[in-house]
Amino acid sequence: MSEFTLLGCQEFTDRLATKAPVPGGGGASALAGAVGAALGTMVGSLTVGKKKYAAVEPEIKAAMESMEALRLRLLALVEEDARVFAPLAEAYKLPNTTDEEKAEKARVMEACLRDACDIPLAIMECCCEAIQLQRVFGEKGSVIAVSDAGVGVAICKAALQGAYLNVKINTRSMKDRDYAASLDEKADTLMNENLAAADEIYDLVLGKLR
Amino acid sequence: MSEFTLLGCQEFTDRLATKAPVPGGGGASALAGAVGAALGTMVGSLTVGKKKYAAVEPEIKAAMESMEALRLRLLALVEEDARVFAPLAEAYKLPNTTDEEKAEKARVMEACLRDACDIPLAIMECCCEAIQLQRVFGEKGSVIAVSDAGVGVAICKAALQGAYLNVKINTRSMKDRDYAASLDEKADTLMNENLAAADEIYDLVLGKLR
Repeated sequence: MSEFTLLGCQEFTDRLATKAPVPGGGGASALAGAVGAALGTMVGSLTVGKKKYAAVEPEIKAAMESMEALRLRLLALVEEDARVFAPLAEAYKLPNTTDEEKAEKARVMEACLRDACDIPLAIMECCCEAIQLQRVFGEKGSVIAVSDAGVGVAICKAALQGAYLNVKINTRSMKDRDYAASLDEKADTLMNENLAAADEIYDLVLGKLR
Repeated sequence: MSEFTLLGCQEFTDRLATKAPVPGGGGASALAGAVGAALGTMVGSLTVGKKKYAAVEPEIKAAMESMEALRLRLLALVEEDARVFAPLAEAYKLPNTTDEEKAEKARVMEACLRDACDIPLAIMECCCEAIQLQRVFGEKGSVIAVSDAGVGVAICKAALQGAYLNVKINTRSMKDRDYAASLDEKADTLMNENLAAADEIYDLVLGKLR
């Protein structure tokens, strides 16, 4: 399935602006992550093959390969987020009057919420890796494109923060509080280990432009 | 002209990843801004028409109208950034040997650099307005969609930071240092007045999810 990432950029934002359940904040985060990742690869593309950067070329090429895999994974996650969010939006509408209905709704909701957390967590993991890779492009990539590594890391950070909110809004509704806490902890750790790094890389790039 | 925003999302990132001069970091920032703006409008779309939010409906509707205008303006700026960046990329390649060539290159570069600063500055201005509008959605929009206002403000902030780097990389090369300083000051002021607000709105949303 590859529906939303085939939409034109303008149309993606048209649909995002509506009250339709998908695409939503999770898919928007994944798309932002893919845009940020692409900027890192762009810096690499402008670096390889240049005499001045021959010494760092193997490292740049390895970073580009990893970054491209992340970009494609993030694009796939745009679709996966829609796939898991649509059933959750339906589950919220299930009847909730009789005890049987309540039990069934709770069961369906819990299963949908687990899926709806797994995808933003996967988006977070990709964004964290992309942030760390931007350091290579910001530090060692061609100076003519260094600003793009800074734009890329800022957008990847926002994608990480966006996906985090999508984990939080779903763990909050889970009945299984132990499981919810384990997901929250995973998400918090990813934030704690990568937000400051993202700012540091952005500042490193900004420092080169002063 | 409306070329890049008609590309599929996947293809936009495909092209962004190449060494082609456009789309570049400025266009990517404008697109991110449009995605962030759309998320604000989405919160509005999920708020209007609901009894529970009847009291804030006029304010939400006004914010949606402003946000939609910003989204469309940011999409137009994706195209405008490509329009001004392509000639700059060409100007960098002009011959630079004789005195006449040097003078001509300097003249063309300076004109191209001015255009190449004006567009990211316009992107910054739109992102700042979008950040301020996200506060309305985050504070008063439907709680079921509040996370989307947080995702939106994070992405608009990244777009602001991204456009800022594109101003800086171009003012740095300007010969007219007074003019460059006046642009830098404008850009610095926009950053100083809006970055903290963006974080505050993100934290406000996060607080509602705890």
